[in-house]
Amino acid sequence: MQNLALVDVLVKLHDALKRNDLAEAAAIIEALRAPDQADIFSELEDAEQATLLPKLHPSQSADILEELDELEAAEVVADLPTDTVIRIVDEMEADEAADLLGDIHPKQAEAVLAGLEDPDEVRPLLMHPDDSAGGLMTSEFLALRPGMTATEAIEAIRAWQPDVETVYYLFVVDSLKRLCGIVNLRQLIIAEPNALISDIMDREVISVPVGTDQEECARLITRYDLLALPVLDDQGMLLGVITVDDVIDVIEDEATEDIQRLGGAEPLDRSYLDASVLTVARKRIGWLLLLFVTGSLTGTVMRYFESELQSVVALAFFIPLLIGTGGNAGSQTTSTIIRALAVGDIDLGDAMSALWHELQAGLLLGFVMAVVAYLRAITWGSGQPLALAVSSAIFLIVIWANGMGSILPLLAARLRLDPTVVSGPLMSTLVDTTGLLIYFTIATVVLSL
Amino acid sequence: MQNLALVDVLVKLHDALKRNDLAEAAAIIEALRAPDQADIFSELEDAEQATLLPKLHPSQSADILEELDELEAAEVVADLPTDTVIRIVDEMEADEAADLLGDIHPKQAEAVLAGLEDPDEVRPLLMHPDDSAGGLMTSEFLALRPGMTATEAIEAIRAWQPDVETVYYLFVVDSLKRLCGIVNLRQLIIAEPNALISDIMDREVISVPVGTDQEECARLITRYDLLALPVLDDQGMLLGVITVDDVIDVIEDEATEDIQRLGGAEPLDRSYLDASVLTVARKRIGWLLLLFVTGSLTGTVMRYFESELQSVVALAFFIPLLIGTGGNAGSQTTSTIIRALAVGDIDLGDAMSALWHELQAGLLLGFVMAVVAYLRAITWGSGQPLALAVSSAIFLIVIWANGMGSILPLLAARLRLDPTVVSGPLMSTLVDTTGLLIYFTIATVVLSL
Repeated sequence: MQNLALVDVLVKLHDALKRNDLAEAAAIIEALRAPDQADIFSELEDAEQATLLPKLHPSQSADILEELDELEAAEVVADLPTDTVIRIVDEMEADEAADLLGDIHPKQAEAVLAGLEDPDEVRPLLMHPDDSAGGLMTSEFLALRPGMTATEAIEAIRAWQPDVETVYYLFVVDSLKRLCGIVNLRQLIIAEPNALISDIMDREVISVPVGTDQEECARLITRYDLLALPVLDDQGMLLGVITVDDVIDVIEDEATEDIQRLGGAEPLDRSYLDASVLTVARKRIGWLLLLFVTGSLTGTVMRYFESELQSVVALAFFIPLLIGTGGNAGSQTTSTIIRALAVGDIDLGDAMSALWHELQAGLLLGFVMAVVAYLRAITWGSGQPLALAVSSAIFLIVIWANGMGSILPLLAARLRLDPTVVSGPLMSTLVDTTGLLIYFTIATVVLSL
Repeated sequence: MQNLALVDVLVKLHDALKRNDLAEAAAIIEALRAPDQADIFSELEDAEQATLLPKLHPSQSADILEELDELEAAEVVADLPTDTVIRIVDEMEADEAADLLGDIHPKQAEAVLAGLEDPDEVRPLLMHPDDSAGGLMTSEFLALRPGMTATEAIEAIRAWQPDVETVYYLFVVDSLKRLCGIVNLRQLIIAEPNALISDIMDREVISVPVGTDQEECARLITRYDLLALPVLDDQGMLLGVITVDDVIDVIEDEATEDIQRLGGAEPLDRSYLDASVLTVARKRIGWLLLLFVTGSLTGTVMRYFESELQSVVALAFFIPLLIGTGGNAGSQTTSTIIRALAVGDIDLGDAMSALWHELQAGLLLGFVMAVVAYLRAITWGSGQPLALAVSSAIFLIVIWANGMGSILPLLAARLRLDPTVVSGPLMSTLVDTTGLLIYFTIATVVLSL
């Protein structure tokens, strides 16, 4: 619960439910805004949800289902009779309805679809992957014709009584339904009543093909400050519209995924406290095991240098410090590069500039760290030769880590992998092994072991 | 450069500039959309920028300055004569103008402000911190009065000829300029011509006080799918409006900061390749040094156990693996918790649930890792006692790391620090030291050293 006021509401709602006063419970929910309704609703037990939802006005239930996490909404719907679901889905926005139907059992989805007032608004949306322009768009939009006057267009808007979501941009299509222009509501209002749409409209419309990745759609909307982005098929026919509110969710979700991957875990796909302990563990164990296996290489390196370690056990004291510093320098670099790629500051063509940038930074950082490490080793009484070995090792390790940290995410991107897979942890583990190799090789020479 | 088409444009532009054909250069720039203009423009040399900008139409120059990174825009402006700057700033949106004036030399800012057509639109915005509602809002908005009719309101819009940015929501204020309602353009169009605004308007407006943090504004706009958010002073007077496009930038910037901090570096505050090597190094050296100092504790722990290490040097082989696994488990947890805090999935009240969640997940993960570590140690021929010591150590270390990983970011949030300061790297360094303590203590007992 985000909000203290909502906690109060929840107490009252539980009270009403305990008294089995469903009318009161429904009234309490209906007095809230949709996102708050969803928050409150998701705090209820499954049985309470299934009892309460059919008592609400279908449009309110629709709002709640739209606001819930997708998986949670699917679970709620699974417990409801089909005719109740139909009444609710009829009130949902087409894009949200399609998302929901895609998440429930195909049999239930087919039954609901068959019962809808206007199944043809939803059915085409089901064909597109959730994370493409087609999965993100709504097919509810008002298309104008170039030959209309401003007054006729305003009349059409009045007759259509549109949802708020898509009304501020109006798209203009020709007789083959191909997109040929865009008009905004402001232009319509300001125009002479008899002006033709074809004279008012802007012909340079930014649009995307239906298969475009959702991140690309988000980037276009963000870059050009759009409120809506039209989606076209191969022939240039207008299929639907992506609105800015859907894109904000995409931006947040993508950042969440990136951050979770950078931490070395698969994305949870649902809100944290709703994810069971088992889910949380399952999303993490794969990486933990993989990193353990790659990390085992450190043991192999050290066994190789067992006799050196045997004769100068003090060598071991610096191991966590050296590989820690390498890992830190590397993850500073990867996280910067990954984010620069994600927001479009750099692309694959900038690989060499980025590498060069990081090698220079590594040179500076490595030098400072080498001086500090030398002083630390001396004050620990490690003696000149060991201090020298430690400080030259840290110098090389930092430069190496910066180089790897910049090149690996770019390599991943070139191989069309998500750059976050070479995240902080994987990066550190790789640098651990190579760092130890560097350290022991230098130590063997400097200490003449 | 994001885009191949833009690279072509850049070549043509350089060509025109080489021939000193400024009219042609200006024409090339003016044919582009604002964000593309800014991209191209920032590829030019400082001198070329200073020559070209005054040749463009002031409204085009204004668009470019609005799109450039803030620091870059300030640098460009610093090289221009004051009267040129005044002509450009006059065309900028008030919120962007205020941001720019805040970034340039105070003397130049004062001179520009004095020359503006309407300094009172910009001056009040200068008082508010950049990252507050006041710093984000624009003071250009059209306020209606409750006693107007729909027709009169539409007339007012026509007379005002508003910028696109703020037109879709219209705010209604009383005689004391206090916000009393909101009308959207759709409602105006659909309404009976003689309907009173006070009858059409929605009285339940979501608004924020002027000092509200920008992240909170972003959260409200995202949560309630708003296109604009009104900003009020203590008396409820309408001061300005925050629009959805500004908020998308906030969301992206905050995610970038979080990701850079999670990687253990201070945010760069500008786009990656624009940041000099020295800046990059400066943003990282502080953390690298701090982590080196805290990491030194690992050496202290190991020196304490020097004799044990002397007698069983094989103990050292597992050190990078153990502390690596601890660090990985910890950063999986911190990154999940930090993101859940940032998007509002959990708040401080959920601290105990989050800790309990993570301890359970740690129990599961620790068990699996203990089994794997035992097998690994046996296959390395380390012998029963050492294998047992390693596997019990890893079991405890993973649980401990999950506990620390969940409690530290929440503790930071409670202390009103940014939770990302206890990022992956700091987390790992802390777990390194405690992990070694756990390992050597167990080893001493199990191996009877």
